Amino acid sequence: MTLDELCVNSLRFLSVDCVEKARSGHPGAPMGMAAMVYTLWQKHLKHDPGDPSWPDRDRFVLSAGHASALLYSLLHVYGYSLPLEELKSFRQLGSKTPGHPEYDREMGIETTTGPLGQGVANAVGMAMAERWLAGHFNRPGFEIIDHYTYVVASDGDMMEGVAAEAASFAGAQKLGRLICLYDDNKITIEGSTNLTFTENVAARFRAYGWHVIEDVDGLDIQAVDSALKTAREESEKPSLIICSTLIGYGSPGKAGTASAHGEPLGQEEAQLTRQQLGWKYEPFEIPDEASQQFNIAKERGKHLNSKWSQLFKEYSTVYPGQAKELTKCLEGELPRGWSEGVKKLFEGESKPAATREASGIVLNAIAKNVNMLIGGSADLAPSNKTILKEKGHFSPGDRMGHNIHFGVREHAMGAIANGLSLHGGVLPYIATFLIFSDYMRPPIRLAGIMGIRVIYIFTHDSIGLGEDGPTHQPVEQLMGLRLVPNLVTIRPADNLETAQAWEVALNRQRGPTALVLTRQKVPQIQHKVTKAEGAVARGAYIVKDTEEMPELILISTGSEVHIALAAAGILNDSGIDARVVSMPSWELFDSQDEEYRNKIFPPEVSARISIEAGVTSSWYKYIGEKGIAIGVDRYGLSAPWEEVYRHMGITASNIVKKALKLLGKD
Amino acid sequence: MTLDELCVNSLRFLSVDCVEKARSGHPGAPMGMAAMVYTLWQKHLKHDPGDPSWPDRDRFVLSAGHASALLYSLLHVYGYSLPLEELKSFRQLGSKTPGHPEYDREMGIETTTGPLGQGVANAVGMAMAERWLAGHFNRPGFEIIDHYTYVVASDGDMMEGVAAEAASFAGAQKLGRLICLYDDNKITIEGSTNLTFTENVAARFRAYGWHVIEDVDGLDIQAVDSALKTAREESEKPSLIICSTLIGYGSPGKAGTASAHGEPLGQEEAQLTRQQLGWKYEPFEIPDEASQQFNIAKERGKHLNSKWSQLFKEYSTVYPGQAKELTKCLEGELPRGWSEGVKKLFEGESKPAATREASGIVLNAIAKNVNMLIGGSADLAPSNKTILKEKGHFSPGDRMGHNIHFGVREHAMGAIANGLSLHGGVLPYIATFLIFSDYMRPPIRLAGIMGIRVIYIFTHDSIGLGEDGPTHQPVEQLMGLRLVPNLVTIRPADNLETAQAWEVALNRQRGPTALVLTRQKVPQIQHKVTKAEGAVARGAYIVKDTEEMPELILISTGSEVHIALAAAGILNDSGIDARVVSMPSWELFDSQDEEYRNKIFPPEVSARISIEAGVTSSWYKYIGEKGIAIGVDRYGLSAPWEEVYRHMGITASNIVKKALKLLGKD
Repeated sequence: MTLDELCVNSLRFLSVDCVEKARSGHPGAPMGMAAMVYTLWQKHLKHDPGDPSWPDRDRFVLSAGHASALLYSLLHVYGYSLPLEELKSFRQLGSKTPGHPEYDREMGIETTTGPLGQGVANAVGMAMAERWLAGHFNRPGFEIIDHYTYVVASDGDMMEGVAAEAASFAGAQKLGRLICLYDDNKITIEGSTNLTFTENVAARFRAYGWHVIEDVDGLDIQAVDSALKTAREESEKPSLIICSTLIGYGSPGKAGTASAHGEPLGQEEAQLTRQQLGWKYEPFEIPDEASQQFNIAKERGKHLNSKWSQLFKEYSTVYPGQAKELTKCLEGELPRGWSEGVKKLFEGESKPAATREASGIVLNAIAKNVNMLIGGSADLAPSNKTILKEKGHFSPGDRMGHNIHFGVREHAMGAIANGLSLHGGVLPYIATFLIFSDYMRPPIRLAGIMGIRVIYIFTHDSIGLGEDGPTHQPVEQLMGLRLVPNLVTIRPADNLETAQAWEVALNRQRGPTALVLTRQKVPQIQHKVTKAEGAVARGAYIVKDTEEMPELILISTGSEVHIALAAAGILNDSGIDARVVSMPSWELFDSQDEEYRNKIFPPEVSARISIEAGVTSSWYKYIGEKGIAIGVDRYGLSAPWEEVYRHMGITASNIVKKALKLLGKD
Repeated sequence: MTLDELCVNSLRFLSVDCVEKARSGHPGAPMGMAAMVYTLWQKHLKHDPGDPSWPDRDRFVLSAGHASALLYSLLHVYGYSLPLEELKSFRQLGSKTPGHPEYDREMGIETTTGPLGQGVANAVGMAMAERWLAGHFNRPGFEIIDHYTYVVASDGDMMEGVAAEAASFAGAQKLGRLICLYDDNKITIEGSTNLTFTENVAARFRAYGWHVIEDVDGLDIQAVDSALKTAREESEKPSLIICSTLIGYGSPGKAGTASAHGEPLGQEEAQLTRQQLGWKYEPFEIPDEASQQFNIAKERGKHLNSKWSQLFKEYSTVYPGQAKELTKCLEGELPRGWSEGVKKLFEGESKPAATREASGIVLNAIAKNVNMLIGGSADLAPSNKTILKEKGHFSPGDRMGHNIHFGVREHAMGAIANGLSLHGGVLPYIATFLIFSDYMRPPIRLAGIMGIRVIYIFTHDSIGLGEDGPTHQPVEQLMGLRLVPNLVTIRPADNLETAQAWEVALNRQRGPTALVLTRQKVPQIQHKVTKAEGAVARGAYIVKDTEEMPELILISTGSEVHIALAAAGILNDSGIDARVVSMPSWELFDSQDEEYRNKIFPPEVSARISIEAGVTSSWYKYIGEKGIAIGVDRYGLSAPWEEVYRHMGITASNIVKKALKLLGKD
């Protein structure tokens, strides 16, 4: 056994031992890809386990997240803060070694993976962020940002559409710093990939404009090393290295079979594997020679980081402004006074406007102050109002552009945005019609799990989009977003609420925010509370109150608030005291203290009606079982939007009718 | 102007006139693809507008659904039941011409399209169903099932991951009867496809194993005709015909630009277009010569249908059993007594079992009786328990197999299942982990809109999957499915409920059904009501009752019902009368009459607790604002499942604690 082989087997058996001890997990992939990934980490990856936040480190993404045991093994042997005890608690409550890798920068985990295809797209986002930062901050002689993004992908990753979309996008963007190692082990859970995955992956990636290195023996360290060198030399195209490997390599009974994938080898088979590979060490034992070898790479990383620090020090002297700005971007810090102009944007404005229009104006105003804000739409920018004026388009010829053409690739857009955010240095926003949020729920959820900053702009937010009809009219999507933990969803009612929604979104540090906006024009509510600060930040506030305790509360969001106000006016004329609450964000409201919540919804007022153009089921949380929810519990209709609203009964007169019934006054 | 050109321009201007009259819609695509699609319909498409349900008709899918005006124009001129008046009411309330095509077999619309990429995958499903039925029912000399599936795709369709997944799958399956006409107009909403879509589509599809015909002039009828002939001759591979076209062809001011895409040309530009193309006819006028020409194709279809009818008559004589079975399959009729065996499957069974295991047993029992049941999993069949024993695997070498290997392609699987169902003759089920239902929400929604039969098997339905952790533990997915209109979601609690859930799913005629199943074992409740029939069909029923009116109602679903029962037992010992309701399906319960609903949840009992391992927000609909919802309003955790349940407080003792608090007895 050569020293390299000793190291590879150390990783292999650490992984096997993790899974055996937990009696749960995926041994096959780590065993097959150990040599491939070891070669990358030992000979190429630029990182410093002592400084996991080093901005110019290479990014490593294990898109095949089920191979988590291998990643934990790597992090341990290369000296990240992951003691052996944690490996022994693999998949146990409270351990740092959950079933699939969870984003933890300090521990060296760059992204949460497991749902297949996501990691590939995350890596595309990271590689973009690298080029964007390089474009903005590098200066002659100062390649401050100058790193690669590596991603390890499995057959499953290659089959997922999100990875296909992202790969096509990466090819168009010529992301030469992106290198994908494809663990081509030809086995999936149902058996041989021949059963359903007969395509020529190499040809497909070449068609995307990638540089493809095929027929690499993924079990051969020299072969992988040489392929990685070739890939790093290619700067115009992203590289795909197709490594033939063997799932469960070393296991006499299970190698090359699906049964090596998702369950422990079992004590006996693990023992036979030790015999076959000549592994004489105890479980969780790492030979000293291997440790020393790992240490060489660790020291190399430390050295490179200290060279970089020296370079950055010089850069800070020659370009103090840039150095300061870069540091702030990397820390995600907003420039002081960034929202000043925003507050005054709509002063005196009383004309009806679509909230998507307002959003476009606010976004552009903010972008003037917040340089790290970059983003775009999945081919709907003119409709989503997301184009940043005079800010260029990110492309192979312009790495400084702020606008991104994602193409009709919603799912990849979501996952690429996660990668942009995870890389750091940029703050991404992305946009599509609300209905197409359905195409990108997996990355939205992952942004929520990771607690990272991504801003979603979802326009055309209800039946109010009109003629495009039921396929394009979101009905369950708004409520569906509210179900996602750690996602803050905001549906503003007018210009001022939209401006405040953007402030909330920018200020949010630990999670994604969705802005849900109208296509159609809505009147300006211009309420004194909204004009003051923080109305939206509290999630709900009173836009029309009564002198005494109200008889009835109308609760509404977004484009229905003005309809609720109209209804309250009519009720008022009939001598009924109705309060109207604008409730742009449930999550923000739920996080207020009880006093505030009871002020808005006094427990003694049980007559409550919600008005929102979407499914109603969760509204009972606020209106009570006896409340009336006016909404759309069916699919929409193709017609001019005013007619659709009338047809669905989302009108002031219908609200009044229901209110009278609820109060027993009909 | 040749006669063909006259016909093409008739379609072009009908489309333009629709959009102009509605002042809303997409004129550019119809103008660009009119020649291409006319060639298909006039010279190749086998259909009989007088008999839209002819089983062996070619299927036509307009994946680029925004070109709906062209489809309506075609349906009208070829004599489907779509009068000109309907074209004049394009996109108006109550018309038969909504903004995007909506499935209506009698009108000749084979599927609902608009969300891009879906139609391509629908077509793959249709082409599969065709081959499966041919495999089962054709006999020497009797090619009863022998048709093509055509799909028209846009640049946007080609960018979507769902279409990529489906195309890879179609290549592996060698679906030679599938022909895709790609409207390569090089324009998307944000501008030239060069901005972000630089890949070589032809090379990509060749990599998938498709037969690609490129550089076809899509404006040239001869060229398209010849390409279609070549494509039809290729029987081993699906064909992609790449047609260069010009969006907004004929419009002097807008042709070739994104502004032709999504808004009317405008009166003036429409007039200029008429001039440029030499169109002297009034709006909505169809020249007589053109009508006569369309009629030729219509007559051809009628003739072919009558020849087929004759053939089928002979077939019915020679193979009466097959003919009868085929007819029943095409009508979606279940064989008499299909569920007989099911009722007895679990008699006397008292051992704990995962509901996914029960589902696998039921599925196999049903499949013995119901031959048209076909399906599979997105590479998780062994975990989803979806393999039909001794029923073969659908593949190029076995067109009779019932099991489908979809590969790790959840999104395409959902859309392909829609195509299978839409084609008719088969009843599809598809499976993945519940968490990955997020990857396929768009086709689930479309199945709901269309009201078609698809059965979803979603296993590993909660934190109860344990060690795989938060990326794999669904939390918001179950509630998210309940939001989708016309989807029935069922989460059974044990073997008997699972069997009944399957019965409901099979019996459902007008919409999809989702079965939500555990990974972990659950005890058998074996309640007398479940043992009788129809408990699940009513959505909720009482599994433990009290002699008097209960003080408290515990409501639970699936794997939490037995925990609720345990809690009720403890409460009972403390002298508290608690009813336990098992509520496998909200939708089924909501459709019961008020009497039944009040019987289960008497209005006078306001102390209610819901117990379900998922987000809680919509539970207030049943427990009231003052009720207590025990659930998981956060992401999960990686650990053995029992520990995760304890950590999240989904335990009998926590339920008891909350109950005492609710009753003021703590």
